[in-house]
Amino acid sequence: MDLVTQNQCFGGTQSVYRHASAVCGVEMTFGLYLPPQARTRPVPLLWYLSGLTCTHENAMVKAGLQRHAAEHGLALLFPDTSPRGEGVADDEAYDLGQGAGFYVNATQKPWAQHYRMYDYVVTELPALLEAHFPLNGVSGITGHSMGGHGALTIAFRNPERFRSVSAFAPIVNPTRSDWGRKQFSAYLGDDEAHWGKYDACLLLSELGWRGDILIDQGAADQFLGQLQPEAMARLMAERRQPGMLRMQAGYDHSYYFVASFGEDHVRWHAERLNAA
Amino acid sequence: MDLVTQNQCFGGTQSVYRHASAVCGVEMTFGLYLPPQARTRPVPLLWYLSGLTCTHENAMVKAGLQRHAAEHGLALLFPDTSPRGEGVADDEAYDLGQGAGFYVNATQKPWAQHYRMYDYVVTELPALLEAHFPLNGVSGITGHSMGGHGALTIAFRNPERFRSVSAFAPIVNPTRSDWGRKQFSAYLGDDEAHWGKYDACLLLSELGWRGDILIDQGAADQFLGQLQPEAMARLMAERRQPGMLRMQAGYDHSYYFVASFGEDHVRWHAERLNAA
Repeated sequence: MDLVTQNQCFGGTQSVYRHASAVCGVEMTFGLYLPPQARTRPVPLLWYLSGLTCTHENAMVKAGLQRHAAEHGLALLFPDTSPRGEGVADDEAYDLGQGAGFYVNATQKPWAQHYRMYDYVVTELPALLEAHFPLNGVSGITGHSMGGHGALTIAFRNPERFRSVSAFAPIVNPTRSDWGRKQFSAYLGDDEAHWGKYDACLLLSELGWRGDILIDQGAADQFLGQLQPEAMARLMAERRQPGMLRMQAGYDHSYYFVASFGEDHVRWHAERLNAA
Repeated sequence: MDLVTQNQCFGGTQSVYRHASAVCGVEMTFGLYLPPQARTRPVPLLWYLSGLTCTHENAMVKAGLQRHAAEHGLALLFPDTSPRGEGVADDEAYDLGQGAGFYVNATQKPWAQHYRMYDYVVTELPALLEAHFPLNGVSGITGHSMGGHGALTIAFRNPERFRSVSAFAPIVNPTRSDWGRKQFSAYLGDDEAHWGKYDACLLLSELGWRGDILIDQGAADQFLGQLQPEAMARLMAERRQPGMLRMQAGYDHSYYFVASFGEDHVRWHAERLNAA
């Protein structure tokens, strides 16, 4: 594992690492923020999964989460959104291929060789992190847009690994969205029977979630047609699922929206991850 | 004046505008954050001048200042660092020409035609802002690196316009720095007698500053040789100048440093700008 950059930030350390991923078959890059508390004790970890077109860098630079993580003693992890590089399949569209891994394990050519972001996030990266950094094994997960989809689906399927979950403007029902159907068809094939394990609404219906859920959604989001928060809102109410979906007046899909509510999400996770 | 983008942020509005600048003779772009308080009353304005290679966008996106401005009821202004465009003189070096205006009025060819950032910041932009936005006429100024140089020099020369001043890792003595001598020679000519009005240490010696001064400097800054905080530290102490220069252990020159101390600076200005 190579250290790419390291900057002191709010008394802690924002680092970027590159490592050979056996799961993805390429070098992968991630950002890790360790709060000041990590110098003296292992700390919980909050994962942040990013959206379409993002790398590990966008949220690390724009979301302002480090301030809140330093206050609450959480580490922050910023993985990339797909495998990358010359030998990795890609597509001209912004919403397929590099920068658009959708947190699935692809089964179809040409994607199956490298696009295994689900296993990367659920299995490989946690093991790497726990071996190298002062983390106490307690984790939560959040994300934005495509990354909100990743956070919800990965949490629902792995409750033993993630104690808390939240999302910013997530794609909640990708099997019924233009942000989902196109990509699942490419990555997973046309048999929709294989899609459901990557759809937050279908997973919540099937598996439930033992904790509560926090979702923030900008009411002026330019992508509401693809995000479909109404599907999750109805489902949470029907199931009497503890949690809240907040429709935030005036906010769009940008990082200004994420930054505006980042403190609430970090505090939400800290209350659950720091509990005994 | 054209509105380029607008995003809700911490309950206020982050906008980007483009306008024809008579002073610079080209179209100029700036970012303006209006806090929620500006919907019901005029508010004070804090200027943020950026450093080498930056546009209006860097601090707007990376520094996280909007959160603190919303809390304290300050507007934030993010001007560009130079004129730009095809007809504007430039240089291959990152530290001369476009992105490196140094907040001076150039007098030498080929720079004199467009590089008039001092007048742009001191005269043209304030008049434009006060005509169009809910500002109460009370202003403070801060900046980073080359922008810290701009903030200090512009404040010292215009105390009637700026009530408060601070800086992040400023170039404090450009007439004795590689970040300064090269540029002043190009923009102002080789007669050093014309350089002093753009040197914070020389200006403080000559004019003084009736208020107090806040300067933060990372002790691990990779550009300490060009920034020379020791010159300002000695001068402030010799003159018994109210204020503080804080040497912050472990911090480098990046926006992670600016973000880490942004709250302190916004609060510093708010205490002075919101005072009766």
